[in-house]
Amino acid sequence: MNRRQFNMGLVMGTAAAIVIDGRLISARGPERLRVNGARLNEHLKALSEFGKNPQGGVSRVAYSEADRQGREYVLGLMRAAKLDVSIDAAGNLVGRREAANNNDRLPPILFGSHIDSVPEGGNYDGDVGSLGAIEVAQTLAENNVMLRHPIEIIIFQNEEGGLIGSEAVIGALTERELDLVNKSGKNVRDGIKFIGGDVSKLAGVKREKGSIAAYLELHIEQGGTLEAEKIDIGVVEGIVGINWWDVTIEGFANHAGTTAMNNRQDALLAAAKFIEAVNRVVTSVPGRQVGTVGRIQALPGAPNVIPGKVVCSLELRDLDAAKIQMLYQKIRAEADQIAKASRVNFDFKALNANIPAPTDPRIRSIVDSSAKELGLTTKLMPSGAGHDAQDMARIGPVSMIFIPSIGGISHSPKEFSRPQDIENGANVLLGAVMKVDQN
Amino acid sequence: MNRRQFNMGLVMGTAAAIVIDGRLISARGPERLRVNGARLNEHLKALSEFGKNPQGGVSRVAYSEADRQGREYVLGLMRAAKLDVSIDAAGNLVGRREAANNNDRLPPILFGSHIDSVPEGGNYDGDVGSLGAIEVAQTLAENNVMLRHPIEIIIFQNEEGGLIGSEAVIGALTERELDLVNKSGKNVRDGIKFIGGDVSKLAGVKREKGSIAAYLELHIEQGGTLEAEKIDIGVVEGIVGINWWDVTIEGFANHAGTTAMNNRQDALLAAAKFIEAVNRVVTSVPGRQVGTVGRIQALPGAPNVIPGKVVCSLELRDLDAAKIQMLYQKIRAEADQIAKASRVNFDFKALNANIPAPTDPRIRSIVDSSAKELGLTTKLMPSGAGHDAQDMARIGPVSMIFIPSIGGISHSPKEFSRPQDIENGANVLLGAVMKVDQN
Repeated sequence: MNRRQFNMGLVMGTAAAIVIDGRLISARGPERLRVNGARLNEHLKALSEFGKNPQGGVSRVAYSEADRQGREYVLGLMRAAKLDVSIDAAGNLVGRREAANNNDRLPPILFGSHIDSVPEGGNYDGDVGSLGAIEVAQTLAENNVMLRHPIEIIIFQNEEGGLIGSEAVIGALTERELDLVNKSGKNVRDGIKFIGGDVSKLAGVKREKGSIAAYLELHIEQGGTLEAEKIDIGVVEGIVGINWWDVTIEGFANHAGTTAMNNRQDALLAAAKFIEAVNRVVTSVPGRQVGTVGRIQALPGAPNVIPGKVVCSLELRDLDAAKIQMLYQKIRAEADQIAKASRVNFDFKALNANIPAPTDPRIRSIVDSSAKELGLTTKLMPSGAGHDAQDMARIGPVSMIFIPSIGGISHSPKEFSRPQDIENGANVLLGAVMKVDQN
Repeated sequence: MNRRQFNMGLVMGTAAAIVIDGRLISARGPERLRVNGARLNEHLKALSEFGKNPQGGVSRVAYSEADRQGREYVLGLMRAAKLDVSIDAAGNLVGRREAANNNDRLPPILFGSHIDSVPEGGNYDGDVGSLGAIEVAQTLAENNVMLRHPIEIIIFQNEEGGLIGSEAVIGALTERELDLVNKSGKNVRDGIKFIGGDVSKLAGVKREKGSIAAYLELHIEQGGTLEAEKIDIGVVEGIVGINWWDVTIEGFANHAGTTAMNNRQDALLAAAKFIEAVNRVVTSVPGRQVGTVGRIQALPGAPNVIPGKVVCSLELRDLDAAKIQMLYQKIRAEADQIAKASRVNFDFKALNANIPAPTDPRIRSIVDSSAKELGLTTKLMPSGAGHDAQDMARIGPVSMIFIPSIGGISHSPKEFSRPQDIENGANVLLGAVMKVDQN
């Protein structure tokens, strides 16, 4: 068969060898090249020591000492994987491997994740994708697999604090974000310096639209769908849009002993009805949309005073921005009714919103076929969580690979993914990177 | 008519003169003796300067400099009313007027209130009863009315911080209460010293059961019933019992983006249903009982995390302790249902409770007839708020006289009672004191 036919065969998932521009590079077919799952899981265990909490899990908040030490460990793994390592001006860790024959005509394939955690977080969110990416690079190196594209493993800094590292990469990091202070006690500006970046050179970090072949990210699902449905791999169809509002409910604070029940303008009672309404509206239509009231403050906040004011959050997420707006309008209508019945006033203040970020159909299909070739079951699903991939979607085609989270627990010391699922995920990433390279 | 017949006539409210043991003291009948309403309202205005807030109302928190200066002003009024003034070891202001011929065979009639306020409170709660009591004493003095019993005007200290002054008078002040710190920054122990008391001599403040003829307290209603029903005077049938609980709801904190709606154990959604249930149960039976959730905390309290834990307050008040328990059991049953449906756990921790304090039927009847003789309308009603009178009920017969609160607003700069209602209340107090004296 000629080269074109061979490449077509590979794309279809039937080829038995790795080729660069038609030249056979490795005798191993994609169905036989595999990551070292035991090594990957050992690396995850070793990384869990940095910021380890006595009660389990880690607090490896970006810019903390634990974060800096964890990054040092990861840099070591990257070097061991024969990557050319650097810290970009934003503080992201980048490990590059050149294309076969130092061919730089093609843009790089990027893949990675993050290793910073929320306070009292777990050992899988970000870590699996980061060390999985390095394991893929090491597997390629050990097997002398040369690719047509350069690859860059990227470990974004401060994902949990607002996708800071990837915001810098797409040139979207704002002055306001640079001033954000996280639990490390540092703001982003000082944090970047602390981890070896250089805020004065941030402009140089920006990558232009079209400058990457693809961005792939392996991640834990952080929800319970894959485990509940006994599915191995989630193929992410997109990262949901997120809209936030501050909701202020004004009633009238009064004496809880002397104010008859029918004379009250109880802002907390109205808030309770609102919280129920949010749940009712969000669950009233089919789909994967979610709605949450996570923060609430009742003022003045004494047991013997009827609350005169409540401030709470409202968050809606869905892959479809129009659906978010539809749900929001229904919630507003419910609030209007509660306001009338309870003699209170509702005010909604829209905060920043993330627009939905669909993944690339071609890359998504590659992920799906890579999983199926490994005998794994797949499900197309949204990512309800935000990820650096949503930023990267603005400069190139992206996809994400999800593995099951046991119990759907995340951002918790109880976060857990099975070693076999982690190995599976890394193998899907390996296969997908090689397929993207052939495209 | 003989002396016995004459006294009987006075008790019936038909006599035309004041007598002490049958001796005519004043030519003015009780239907003609009146307080000076204009003076009383001027005094209230003058007192409002101490701790005055720019936005209205006062912050005359116990043990603050404003409190101390306000007390100095009140001591001056007491002296002007020819009272023999002292500060007891607990810091209460006491103005005594001896009985006719210094007769001390009979126990004193006590009446008064408090002048401390909540932070950002109003100018009527406590002030009306305090200055009203002094006005009654001044009216008696100016008219040379001699009574059979000594009278003592008592201005209790730190009513708003837990009835501290009256707790001391009934010998119930605890070490724990002495350690309470209020918004003045001082604890009760230091506060008592600051206002001229002596904690080492607190035992001497205690009054034994049966040592007082009666305790009467004029007060604003703090609710909206009298105004709404256009009634002049509330005759207080008792001070409600108050039970408090801390309610802890344990769900499971999880990622608000990745956790499907049907997989959540949202403690705040359960709390919302609980708050609604409290309202529903309390309003499901006839009566004046009230139930309030005034304080709430949701943890971890981030817009993007499903709350795993909520702690809120529950307060129930009624004149009947058995009714409070009945409502509580119904609320517990509702909580059990919510717990099952929402897969959360409820825990109720009972905090201190105030038992209901009924007023004395005889004194209550005297208040009612005193009001009616003045042509005022009356209504028998509970006090939903706590008052020093509930402590005093443990050592002698008590009653309270309520006047309308406009809009039912209290503990607020918007607290307001009309000058005429204040004058009416003081006249009812005057009449009631004279009737009690004749009993």
